[in-house]
Order: sequence, then structure tokens, then C-alpha cells
Amino acid sequence: MQELTKHSSMKAGLPPGTMIHVGEKRTETVRISLIKYNREQVELLEDVSPDECRLEADFNGMAWINITGIHDLKIVETLGNIFDIHPLVLEDIVHAGQRPKVEDHDRHLFIVLKMLMYERDQEQVLAEQVSLIVGKNYVLSFQETSADVFDPVRKRIFDGKGRKMRNSGSDYLAYSLMDSIVDQYFTILEYYGEKVEALQEEVLASPTPATLGTIQGAKRDMIFLRRSVWPFREALATMERGGSSLITQEVLLYIRDVYDHTIQVIDGIEAFRDMLAGTLDIYLSSVSNKMNEVMKVLTIIATIFIPLTFIAGIYGMNFEAMPELKWWWGYPAVMLVMLGLGLAMLIMFKRKHWL
Amino acid sequence: MQELTKHSSMKAGLPPGTMIHVGEKRTETVRISLIKYNREQVELLEDVSPDECRLEADFNGMAWINITGIHDLKIVETLGNIFDIHPLVLEDIVHAGQRPKVEDHDRHLFIVLKMLMYERDQEQVLAEQVSLIVGKNYVLSFQETSADVFDPVRKRIFDGKGRKMRNSGSDYLAYSLMDSIVDQYFTILEYYGEKVEALQEEVLASPTPATLGTIQGAKRDMIFLRRSVWPFREALATMERGGSSLITQEVLLYIRDVYDHTIQVIDGIEAFRDMLAGTLDIYLSSVSNKMNEVMKVLTIIATIFIPLTFIAGIYGMNFEAMPELKWWWGYPAVMLVMLGLGLAMLIMFKRKHWL
Amino acid sequence: MQELTKHSSMKAGLPPGTMIHVGEKRTETVRISLIKYNREQVELLEDVSPDECRLEADFNGMAWINITGIHDLKIVETLGNIFDIHPLVLEDIVHAGQRPKVEDHDRHLFIVLKMLMYERDQEQVLAEQVSLIVGKNYVLSFQETSADVFDPVRKRIFDGKGRKMRNSGSDYLAYSLMDSIVDQYFTILEYYGEKVEALQEEVLASPTPATLGTIQGAKRDMIFLRRSVWPFREALATMERGGSSLITQEVLLYIRDVYDHTIQVIDGIEAFRDMLAGTLDIYLSSVSNKMNEVMKVLTIIATIFIPLTFIAGIYGMNFEAMPELKWWWGYPAVMLVMLGLGLAMLIMFKRKHWL
Amino acid sequence: MQELTKHSSMKAGLPPGTMIHVGEKRTETVRISLIKYNREQVELLEDVSPDECRLEADFNGMAWINITGIHDLKIVETLGNIFDIHPLVLEDIVHAGQRPKVEDHDRHLFIVLKMLMYERDQEQVLAEQVSLIVGKNYVLSFQETSADVFDPVRKRIFDGKGRKMRNSGSDYLAYSLMDSIVDQYFTILEYYGEKVEALQEEVLASPTPATLGTIQGAKRDMIFLRRSVWPFREALATMERGGSSLITQEVLLYIRDVYDHTIQVIDGIEAFRDMLAGTLDIYLSSVSNKMNEVMKVLTIIATIFIPLTFIAGIYGMNFEAMPELKWWWGYPAVMLVMLGLGLAMLIMFKRKHWL
Amino acid sequence: MQELTKHSSMKAGLPPGTMIHVGEKRTETVRISLIKYNREQVELLEDVSPDECRLEADFNGMAWINITGIHDLKIVETLGNIFDIHPLVLEDIVHAGQRPKVEDHDRHLFIVLKMLMYERDQEQVLAEQVSLIVGKNYVLSFQETSADVFDPVRKRIFDGKGRKMRNSGSDYLAYSLMDSIVDQYFTILEYYGEKVEALQEEVLASPTPATLGTIQGAKRDMIFLRRSVWPFREALATMERGGSSLITQEVLLYIRDVYDHTIQVIDGIEAFRDMLAGTLDIYLSSVSNKMNEVMKVLTIIATIFIPLTFIAGIYGMNFEAMPELKWWWGYPAVMLVMLGLGLAMLIMFKRKHWL
Repeated sequence: MQELTKHSSMKAGLPPGTMIHVGEKRTETVRISLIKYNREQVELLEDVSPDECRLEADFNGMAWINITGIHDLKIVETLGNIFDIHPLVLEDIVHAGQRPKVEDHDRHLFIVLKMLMYERDQEQVLAEQVSLIVGKNYVLSFQETSADVFDPVRKRIFDGKGRKMRNSGSDYLAYSLMDSIVDQYFTILEYYGEKVEALQEEVLASPTPATLGTIQGAKRDMIFLRRSVWPFREALATMERGGSSLITQEVLLYIRDVYDHTIQVIDGIEAFRDMLAGTLDIYLSSVSNKMNEVMKVLTIIATIFIPLTFIAGIYGMNFEAMPELKWWWGYPAVMLVMLGLGLAMLIMFKRKHWL
Repeated sequence: MQELTKHSSMKAGLPPGTMIHVGEKRTETVRISLIKYNREQVELLEDVSPDECRLEADFNGMAWINITGIHDLKIVETLGNIFDIHPLVLEDIVHAGQRPKVEDHDRHLFIVLKMLMYERDQEQVLAEQVSLIVGKNYVLSFQETSADVFDPVRKRIFDGKGRKMRNSGSDYLAYSLMDSIVDQYFTILEYYGEKVEALQEEVLASPTPATLGTIQGAKRDMIFLRRSVWPFREALATMERGGSSLITQEVLLYIRDVYDHTIQVIDGIEAFRDMLAGTLDIYLSSVSNKMNEVMKVLTIIATIFIPLTFIAGIYGMNFEAMPELKWWWGYPAVMLVMLGLGLAMLIMFKRKHWL
Repeated sequence: MQELTKHSSMKAGLPPGTMIHVGEKRTETVRISLIKYNREQVELLEDVSPDECRLEADFNGMAWINITGIHDLKIVETLGNIFDIHPLVLEDIVHAGQRPKVEDHDRHLFIVLKMLMYERDQEQVLAEQVSLIVGKNYVLSFQETSADVFDPVRKRIFDGKGRKMRNSGSDYLAYSLMDSIVDQYFTILEYYGEKVEALQEEVLASPTPATLGTIQGAKRDMIFLRRSVWPFREALATMERGGSSLITQEVLLYIRDVYDHTIQVIDGIEAFRDMLAGTLDIYLSSVSNKMNEVMKVLTIIATIFIPLTFIAGIYGMNFEAMPELKWWWGYPAVMLVMLGLGLAMLIMFKRKHWL
Repeated sequence: MQELTKHSSMKAGLPPGTMIHVGEKRTETVRISLIKYNREQVELLEDVSPDECRLEADFNGMAWINITGIHDLKIVETLGNIFDIHPLVLEDIVHAGQRPKVEDHDRHLFIVLKMLMYERDQEQVLAEQVSLIVGKNYVLSFQETSADVFDPVRKRIFDGKGRKMRNSGSDYLAYSLMDSIVDQYFTILEYYGEKVEALQEEVLASPTPATLGTIQGAKRDMIFLRRSVWPFREALATMERGGSSLITQEVLLYIRDVYDHTIQVIDGIEAFRDMLAGTLDIYLSSVSNKMNEVMKVLTIIATIFIPLTFIAGIYGMNFEAMPELKWWWGYPAVMLVMLGLGLAMLIMFKRKHWL
Repeated sequence: MQELTKHSSMKAGLPPGTMIHVGEKRTETVRISLIKYNREQVELLEDVSPDECRLEADFNGMAWINITGIHDLKIVETLGNIFDIHPLVLEDIVHAGQRPKVEDHDRHLFIVLKMLMYERDQEQVLAEQVSLIVGKNYVLSFQETSADVFDPVRKRIFDGKGRKMRNSGSDYLAYSLMDSIVDQYFTILEYYGEKVEALQEEVLASPTPATLGTIQGAKRDMIFLRRSVWPFREALATMERGGSSLITQEVLLYIRDVYDHTIQVIDGIEAFRDMLAGTLDIYLSSVSNKMNEVMKVLTIIATIFIPLTFIAGIYGMNFEAMPELKWWWGYPAVMLVMLGLGLAMLIMFKRKHWL
């Protein structure tokens, strides 16, 4: 969310279609990899220049152009020219913090979604914007950093001779990429599942004010996740209802499958939100329980000893005419009375279940 | 929900249609039972192999193939080939934790729903995924364990000569299976009804911090139930609006009946959620009432004895020139004053309704 | 709600269309009354047998068959055969706890709704399921007990010669019955209106923990009422949008009127829910106000007397070298100091508005 | 709301179309005023009888018949006959407490809405039901009391020779009346705006338990306002979508304007509700802040003096063998220790920001 | 919101189309600037009179007429006559506090939206109503004050020879103006983003009752923002679904882009609302934590010293027959007992984690 509000204001006043890179500043060079494949063969070209990405008019295989880094506006613009991409689309591609969406631009589909990755080392969830341009026989994928979740797709292209991937068109490749990303959401959910469970145990065992912060943080993360997945779900629903000539009837089935997965992810997020709300309730209640316990201790001690102290105070008075003071059994009698009173109080507390 | 997030991440990166068994690991053998019936006769074949399930081209009765256990991917795949089931559907079948849904695949309907069973012994609700493939003259039902709620349906097939069940097609059999499952939901509701009532009594009688945990647990269960039933309701609504050529007009009436039942179940769940929210309010309020009571006791004791102790303290001072100390009625007079003060306090508390 | 979850589980596993009486067990005999009327004449037949209800083929008046008691399944089944009622409908009729609904079965409409009656004697709201079968020239009404709200309708049939009721068909009779039931809802609302007002006064005057229970109870009742009226409103909306050939254009106007009334009832229920939520807030706030008051008393007393007791304690010490003790004005001086301190405290409390 | 539930139950059991006056009982005579106007002339007839309202067949101007008082059922019935009004509509007219609505009865439109007036003298909002019957060349307006907001409309009719009002038909007159009523809503909003602002200041300055009551009262008023305006907004939306042949395309533009105003009113109401909820939060928080302050005072006093009193108590013990008591510097030493301890406590409280 | 309710009531009773200026009273003169441009040339006319704005019949460029100040009704009316604007539209233009909307009046579109500007100097957000009249070859823009966000658009017109702006029609100009305004929303969001973050830190570090006021204020601002943006989003959605002949297919793409931006703004607002709700929770919880801490200190001190004081009180009694008093080790023994008791208490508190 920070990324949404922090950077977008830089664009105020610029003409539409002005590309401004929004996102974390990166110094790495932008790298382009090009995979061409068809039923028979695969070809991988690493670190190609944008111009090398131009497909020959008679190219009849599939091309997947993966651009790593969106901060070199030149490169994006050149690709925009080659593949005839609308300036507004280019603007969105280089401007991280877009809402996931699917736009149908006749020549190609423009798909924006969030790639979420869980880094076990730093116990952190990384979010990155991925933009797909899905043309007749090519897919352009723009990602912010080199870390991605597309390796299994690459593997399937290279190893999958005679398998579905190699026999299918750009729609299936786009589906595969989206599916990889959505599959990753489940890993994130799993991570939060463990976190929520740990929180629930912590809240019951030893809640501290810091626990509250963690709960609120997790709630905020859930809101962020929801914002990443929900609009994508909507976009997929629109896609599934069909219309685009770029997506075959057969791949629509697969799109529906991804759509089902996003619903499952949203269900999971909602469940976690409910659980976190419950955890918050338990936290607040346990704080107030502790308070109760503190008050009980104070009340028990004070209620027992204040009256006793009063009795001791009476016989500490210096009146000359206090006959009890002279009786030799006066002292033990008073001590017994005080003991009896103390015991009576304890019994009363027992009865009230305060002990 | 655990099952949703725990296992799904194993699939990340695999090609679509890759079957991975998700669910509790079971070691029992997968068993297939095949019931063939028509108006005149019934035939039960236990422990058949998948290949024996292939129906002859001229088979003109009804076949119900029940597969117990979804962890043997070979068997599911073989059946998939025989009945021409889409790989994505097979993937869903063996992947427990699906959202209930109905998909129309022309040749057959694919229905996923949750079978919930209440085990009286362990006071536990068991959830299991049931997948139905409803073809022209066959129904395949996949369930995770051998425990099921289909015995009444079996009985009706065997005993019901000349009755509706034997005269109807696969749509009616599918309806009967769904109806058995939904009927079971009411048993679950009943179980929670009792639980909620017990909670309400407990909260009024003797609320402990553990009560809060139980309330939250029940709320969580309600969320889980809702997640199991709500999407199925939606799926039934879609089915009822019709469209599928596999469902006759007559059976649509029965589907509407099941639909009504799911609405009743959801109404019940919502009612329980409202009641649990109310119970939570009462719990929190009763905790704060107890606190109030504790404070009152402390205040009464302290308010009565602190001033009295002060008076005793005055006459405990060692000034030489304190004439009261020498008067013989000084002691009884002070005692009377203290008694009077104490009584005045008590009357004040009575007036404020603290006693 | 109890009725929903308590009994429905008995049906688990039975074939659809199996009639099982669900509802309170009644021992009274089921009684059937038959009123035949047309423009010219009225005829009342009490305690007829089901078979006597069969209408002659050339019967050209209106027949209203009122069945009191739904626990005699034989009778309901016989009527079902005579009037050609679908088994699923019969099942719903004898199974109290249905959700209000309207179903169009070509030959007749099937209407289920809740009859609510307020019993002044026992300060209790009674709920009962009423099912209507509205055919071309007959109306069957099934009710659970003999108490009903239909007397005004009966009166209008018998007295209303030449009036609308006698000139109209089954749709108008059905409307009249529904209207009687919905009119009764306003009486119930009035009862709760008084209850809510009393609660609001109680909460301001003398809130006790029992008040909370009453508030929660009223909230629960509102949920129950809402569940009784809301689906009926929906059903009426469907009916009003028309379609059924059994309802004339003229009567649709009246249906719209009943529909308006149900909206008013729902508005009232929502208003009461809001008021109850407000009352709950006031209750909780008043409890915390009381706590505040208790704390203030404790604080005032303790804050005044603890320092004074300390001063008295000082001069109660037994040091030999305490010159003040020997001065004759030491005692009055200390007393004045203590008085001054006490007054200062009181002034401070006054300033803080604690007194 | 009271009016809704208090009176409507009187109607239970009566045939539809039975007129029963519901609303405050009024003793004033019902007065009818008739204004006939066209492009050239205006004619005002005060206190006419219902029969004088019958328009001649060849009447080709506009007639506005304003009926003040709806408790004389005779008069309403006569007008109903003259203008051919459906009994159900007459029933609604005399039954205050209707939900605002628009009904299209071919011959005329039936419009019900709430007229709200703010009485500066009594700081009170008055609500009254206004019913409009909008025919081809006449408008009937029924209001409960003589106070109304229509004077500007009257003025425009009399003064507006050659202006829009005199040249337009019944639809424009009806629009003008509705517009006057909706304009008044803004005055009410303004009144509540001031009230809410005053409440916000009061809550920050000197919140008393009475403040809570006022907040809840204002919330309840907002609910009432919402219930008055929301359904009217819906009705206008239906009207705007058109259909009725009685409303010209040109006037539809004006209706859309009124519709926009009702949305603004609802926006205002929602904003006030949000602000009141915020005010409630501040109130509750300020109450708990006060509690905090009370507790702090108690704790500071008690924490300082209880240990000191203990020390004084030690040297008040009567042991013979207490050497300190005999040292001449024992007393000042103890006094210094106590002073030091007290100061240390004060410094600690300062550090904890309790002072 | 104030502006909504404060001023609108002045209009009550006036005929529709009566222009009344609503908004802050301004004394500056209304200024009109006229920019005429086409592919080849640009012409800027400052401070023109309304009549000079009339476009010649054969004018074939684009004209942008910007009116600064809406309080001179004469001028607005004259322009209304020249450009054939409906009186109701004129009324809306001069009446600040309109709900954002888009109306299609065949000859022109009427667009109302809120211009929000953040003033860094006064740390304040200014809101102003902007109305656009978009005709075939002209755009009229009405704004309240001279401050605006249109400079970039002006610059693009003057500098952009041969660029899109100069080659496009009124639809593109209108889009550019709307885009400038919506871009500014992100600056506002950024401002609130910082504010919310500062609040979150403040709440964790040193929450004061004033913090609560700031949180509530920010929440109120979010409600105001939402009210400004949400209806505009709806209006854009209607526009995007098309229909108006004044907007070309190409510009629709740009409108969709603005629409996407408003959704992002709303997402941001919702996120802030969620975060503020979380901040409020943390504030309330931290207040109650402080209370807890205060109570603990009180309890620890009182629980340790009250029993000790009691023991001292016992040996302060004046009984003659108290043998302990005469033993020489009585005093040190009692002191040791008290020390032991004190330490035991401290250990207990340690165990309960109160220290």
C-alpha cells in the first residue's frame, strides 16, 4: 500500500502515457530472455536486445519474452513499438502498484497481477508486479526483479517435448504463468496459517502488548493480500465469461481452474481474518482477565488486613480507662478474634470462588 | 481450512492436470464397489478393478460406481480414461480441500461437496470431500474413507423394486446422494445447537477463561461449516436454473428441495453465529460484572475501616496533653462514635444498592 | 430455530417425499372444516373426512378446506392424492420449520408462511407453520393447532353477501388469509415495541445483569422474526412480478399491498434491532459508570484518610526525644493540620468534579 | 417508528380497503382548498366541499386540491369516488406511517412521502405523511395538519404569470411539491449538523452520562430520517427510469434533480451516523480516561503513604528493647527517611508520566 | 460535509433552476480565460467577458473556457444562454457541495467533480467543486478559486504542437482535466499516508487523549474523501460503458485509465480506514494497558505493606500481658518476620510476572 501512495504522486500533471518508473529503485541492468519453441524444438536466447525480440512475419512457433526489470524505460518503449502496445499500457507496466486487471486490446491481452514470494530466510513476503502481454503467438512478461516463480514453466517448455505445453499457443503459456503465480499464493497462505496458529498459542500462553502489534500487523497483511488477489479474481471472472478471441475454448477450462484457486485463496484469507479477529478478542479478554486477577489479590489482602489493623489500632489507643488492657487473657483473646475474622474472610472468598 | 492451506502448496509449479493426492495419508487399499440396477434387477459387485467398471456399449441400466479412497492415483486415472474425464477434474477429485462446486462438462456433470459426519463417540465432526461424476447412465462417487452416509440410498436401490429410485436415471441417483449428505448437515446443526445452548448456560452460571476459548472455537466451526455449505448452495442455484441436459425437469424439482435445505442449513448457521456473538457479549459483560463485584467489596471494606482506623490512630498518639485519654468515658465514647460511623457507612451503601 | 435443528435430523436417510411429522407432538385429532361458497350461498361442513373434500367436477363455487393439525400423515396423504399434490410438497406441509416460500406448481400454488400470535396471558409469542395450496377454485390451508387468526376471514365469507370476498376467486381468498397473518405481525411488533421501551427505561433506571439477558433475548427474538418475515417478503416479490396464471391482475394489487406491509414489518424489526443495540451500549456504559462511581468513593475516602492516618501514626511513635509530644498545644495543632489537609483534599475533589 | 407499530395493529382482521385513520387524533375540521389555474388566470377556492372538487369534463386548466387533515374518512372516500381512486390507495392515504413509495395506477400516480419540518421554537422535528394523487390535469395532496412547506409553490402559482409553473402540467406541479419537501430535508440536516457539532464539543469538554443518551437519541433520529428518505429515493429512481405516461420527458429532468437531492440528503445522514459513532467512541474513551485519572490519584496517594505509615507503625511498637527509640536523633532520622522515601516515590511517578 | 448541510437550506422554497451561489463567500472578481487552439496555433485571451466566449458558427478549432469564481450569477447565466445550458445544470454549477456526477445532455456532457489540493504550508487539504461542460468543440470549466491543478494541461496545449493534445477534440481535453484532478488525489493520499504512519508511531510511543481526537479526525477525513471519489468512480463507470456520442472510442480508453486510478484511490482510502481502525484498537488497548500497570503498582505496594502494618499494629497494642514485648530478641524477630513476609510477596509477584 505504501508503494501505491508513495510514488504515484510523482505522476501528477504529466501527460497520459508518460512512462515513469514507480517501484523500488534498482541498479541492476534490465535483462531480456527470449524462448522460442514449437512442437519440435526449443531455443533459448539470453540477454537479447529489445530489437532482437521482433518476430519474423513468418514465425510460426511460440515466443516467450521475459523482461527482468522495468526501470529502463527505453527498453520498455522499444518493445512497446515492436509489439504495438498502447502508451497507457506501457505506463502501467513500468508503474508498479497497479491493481491486478485484465484488459482486452484486440491485438493482445494485457494482464497485470501480483507475484508474491515467501522468503524463508528473512521470514518475509515479497510482492512484485508482473505484467503480461499475450499476443497471437507471443507472450511478453515484465517482472521487477530476477527472482521469480516461473522455473517450473521453463522446465516444462524445455523438457516437455510432445506434451501439452509445447503443442499449445500463447493462451496456454499465459495460463501457465498465471497458474504458477497463483499456486505460490498457497505457500503464502501456509506461511500465514502457521503465523496465525503461533499467535493463537501466544495469546493464550503469554500475551504481551507486543502481541497486539503482531496481530494488527497480520491483519494488515491480510488486507494487502486481499487487495492483491480480489481484483485478479474479478479479472479472471471477466476473462472466463469469454469474449477474447485470443483464448481458446479449451484454455478457458484452465482459466476457470485458476479462477477456482483464487476463490480458494480468498476463502483462506477471509478465514484468517476471522481467526485474527477472534485472536484479538481473546487477547483483549486475557488482558482484562489479568486485571481481574490483580484486583482480586489486592481486594483479598486489603479486605483481610484492613479490619484486623483497625482492631489492633483500637488496642493501641492510649485511654487510661481500658479495662481489657489489664486482663491477662486480653491479648490472646484479641489474637484469637483476629484469627477468626481472617479465617472467616478466607472462607467467604472461597465461597465467591476468588481463591 | 488447515487442509486448504497445508497441502495445496505442494502443487506449486506442477503442470495443470497433475494429480497429487492431498488429504490425510491413508494406508488402506482403495476399494471400488459397482452397483448395476434397472427396473427389474440389481447387481452388486464389490472390490472390482477399475477396468471392470467399463460399461458395455449396450448397457441400458444404471451403474453406480463408488470409489472409497482417493490416494491411489493409478486407479483414479484409469477411471478417468474409461469415463473420459478431463485431467483438471481428476486433479480436483484427488485433491481434498476443494470448494464445493458443480461443473457442466457436457458428457457429465462434476459435483464436489463436503460430507460432514458427527461421531458421537469422540464428540467430533468429520469432514470429507465427495466428488460425483454424473453421466448419462452412470454415477461415479469418490469418497476419502469408508465411512459414509449413503447406506439409506443403497438400501433403497436394493429394496425399492418398482419404486422411484429404480425407475429413475443418474440424475435422481445423484440427487439422492446429495440429499443424504445435506440431510446429515442437520445432524451437525443439532450437535452445535446443543453445544451453543450448553455454552449459554455455562456463560451465565460459571464463566471461566476457558469458556471464551470454546466460544471462539464454535465460532470458527461455524465459519468452516458456512464455507462448506454456502458455495454448494450457489452451485445448486446454478443447477436449478437448469441448462444441463443430464437433469430432467422432474428431478429439478428435487434439486430445488435440496437447495431449500441448504438455505435452511445456512439460516441455522447464521442463527448460531448470532447466538455465539450474543454469548460472547454476555461472557465479556459477566467478566466485567465480576470485576465490579470485587471492586465493591474492596470499596466497602476500605471505606468503612480506613476512617475508623484513623480515629483509633488519633487516640494512639502519645501527646501528653490529650485530656480525652484521661476521662473514664473517653474509651466507650470513641467506640460508640466508631460504631455509629460504621453503621452510617453501611446505610449509605445500602442506599446506593451496593449491598 | 430450535424447531429447525431439533427435528430435521430425524429425516436423514429417508427417501425424498417421505412424510415425517416434525413439530410439537400433538394428541388432538386432526379436524377438517370445509366452507363452500359462491355469490349466492355459503355452506359450512365441520369435521369432514378427507374424502368428503373431493370437489365434484362441475363444482363452480369456491371451496376453502382448513386442516387443523398436521400430525396425521394419512389424512394429509389422502388430501394429497385428491388434489394431486407433489410428494415433496406434502413432505414440506407436515414438516414444521420450513422457510417461508411460494412455489408455482402449475395446477396450484404452494405457499408456506409463519403465523405468529401474541398471547397476552402468558406474555408469549407463538409461532406456527401455515401451508396454503391455492388451486383454481379451492384453497387448502394447513395449520398446526386450532388457534388461528382467520376468524375475520370466516366472518367476511359468511356475512359478506354481495361483497368482494364472495365474488372473488381462490386468489383473493389466499390473499385474505395471508393478509390476516401479516396484519398479526404488527401486533407482535407492538408487543416488542413496548418491551424495547421498557428495557430502555430499565437500563437507565436500574440496570442489573438480568437486564443484559433480556436484551440478548429480545435481540434473538428479532433475529427469529426477521427469519420468519424476510423470506416471505422475497416470495411475495416473486409472486408480484407475476407469472402465475392463478392470480388475476386485480389481486396482484392486493398482493403488492401485503408486500408493502411485510416491508414495513421488516423496517420495524430493523429499527428495534438498532434500538436494542443502542440499549446494549447504554447498559454497558452504565455498568462502567457505576464502576467509576465505586472507584471514586474508594479513592476519595482513601485519599483523605490515608495521609491523616500517617500523621497520627507519626505521633504514635514511641521515640523518647519527640519534643512536640510534650507541648500542650501539640495535640490541637496536629488536629488542626489534619482538618486542614482533609478540607484541602475535599476542595481538590470538588474542583475535579468528583463530588 | 412508534406510529408504525402503535396503530397498525388496529387494522388486524379488517377487510382490505377498509379505511381506518391512523395518526394522531385531530379535532380540527378537515379543510379543502382548490386552486385552478392556467396560462391566463388563477382561481382560489377555500373550504370547498369534496363534491365541488369534481372537475367539469371540459376543464382544460390545472387543478390543485389540497386536503388538510386525513381523519375525516367520509371526505376522503367521496374524493376517492370522484377521482376513481382504488380502495387500497385510500386506505394508505388515511393510514399515516406508510413507507414512502410511488405507485403507477394508469389513471394517476400515487405518491407517498414524509414531510419533515423543523420547529425552531420547540427545537423539534415534526414528521407528517403527505400523499399525492397526480392525474392528467389535477393533483390531490393530502396532509395531516395545516402546517406545510407548500407556500412557495402557492406563491409561484399566483405570481408566476407567464412563467414555467403556469405553463406546465400536473407533473410539474407534483415535482414542485416534492421538491419543496425535499428542500426542507436540508434544513433538518442543518439542525442535526449543529446538534452533532455541539455533541462533539460537549463530549470533549464535559461528558456526562446524559451525553450518552443524547448521542443515542441522535443516532435513533438518523435511523428514522434514513427510513423516511431512503425508500423515497428508490421510488424516485423507479420514476426516473420512466414508464409513466403522466410524466413528460422534460419533467423527468427535474425528477432526476430531486433524486440527486435525496442522494445528497442520504449522504449527509450517513456522514452524521459516522460522526455520531465517532462521538460515541470518544465518549466511551473519555469515560475510561477519567477512570484512569481517578485510579492514578488513588495509587499515588496510597503508594506514597502506605509504606510511610508502616514505618511509623514500626516505631509505634511497644517492645522494651528498641534501642532506636532512646537515641535522641532517632526521631529526626526516621522523619528524614520517610521524607526521602516520599520524594523517591514522587520522582518515580514523574518518570512514569503519572504526574 | 459542512458545506453540504450549511448552505443548501437557503434554497428551500425557491423555484427549480433558481441559481443561488452556495460556497464560501468570495469578493474577488470572476475571471474568464479563453484558450482557442488547433493543430497549428494557440490563442490565449485573459479576462474576457462572457459574450466574447460565443464561438463563431464556423469556428473549427477547440475552445477551453475557464471560469474562476462561481459567485457572479450574471456571468454564469450569460454563459448558460450562449451555450444553451439547462437551468438545473446552471443551478448545480453555482451550488458548491454537489455530489460528483456525469450527466448526458445530448448537446453536451455535464461533469461535476471535487478538486482536492494539499497545501503544504498550512498542512491542510482544500476541496473545491469543478464543473465541466463538454460540448462538440468546447469545454467550459467552472472552478471556485484561482488555485487549480490545470497548469500542466495548459502547458501541454501551448507547448505541445503536433502532439496528441493539439490534435484531439473536447473529449480529450475533458479527460486531461479530470486526469489532472484525479492525479492530485494521490498527493492527498500520500499526505494521509504519512499522517497515518505518524499516528501509528505516536500511539505506540506516547498516546494521549488528544491522539484519539486526531484518529477520529483522520477517519472523518477518509469518509469525506470517500464521498468525493466514490460517486465520481460510479459516474466514470457509466461514462466508460459508453453511449455518449461526444466521446470517441479512443478517448474511452483514457477514461478507463482515469477510472482505474479512482479505484486505486478508493483502495487506498479503504486501506487507510482499516489502518485507522487498527490504530484506534491499539490506542484503546494501550490505554487499558496503562491502567493495568497503575493497578499493578498499587496492588504490589498495598499487598506488601498492609500485612506488615498489621503486624506492627499488633505490637503497638497496649496490653499489659504481652510477653513478647519484654523479650530482648522480640523486636529483631518481628523485624525479620516482616522482612521475610515482604520478600515472600516479592517472589510471588515475580512468579506472576507482575514485576
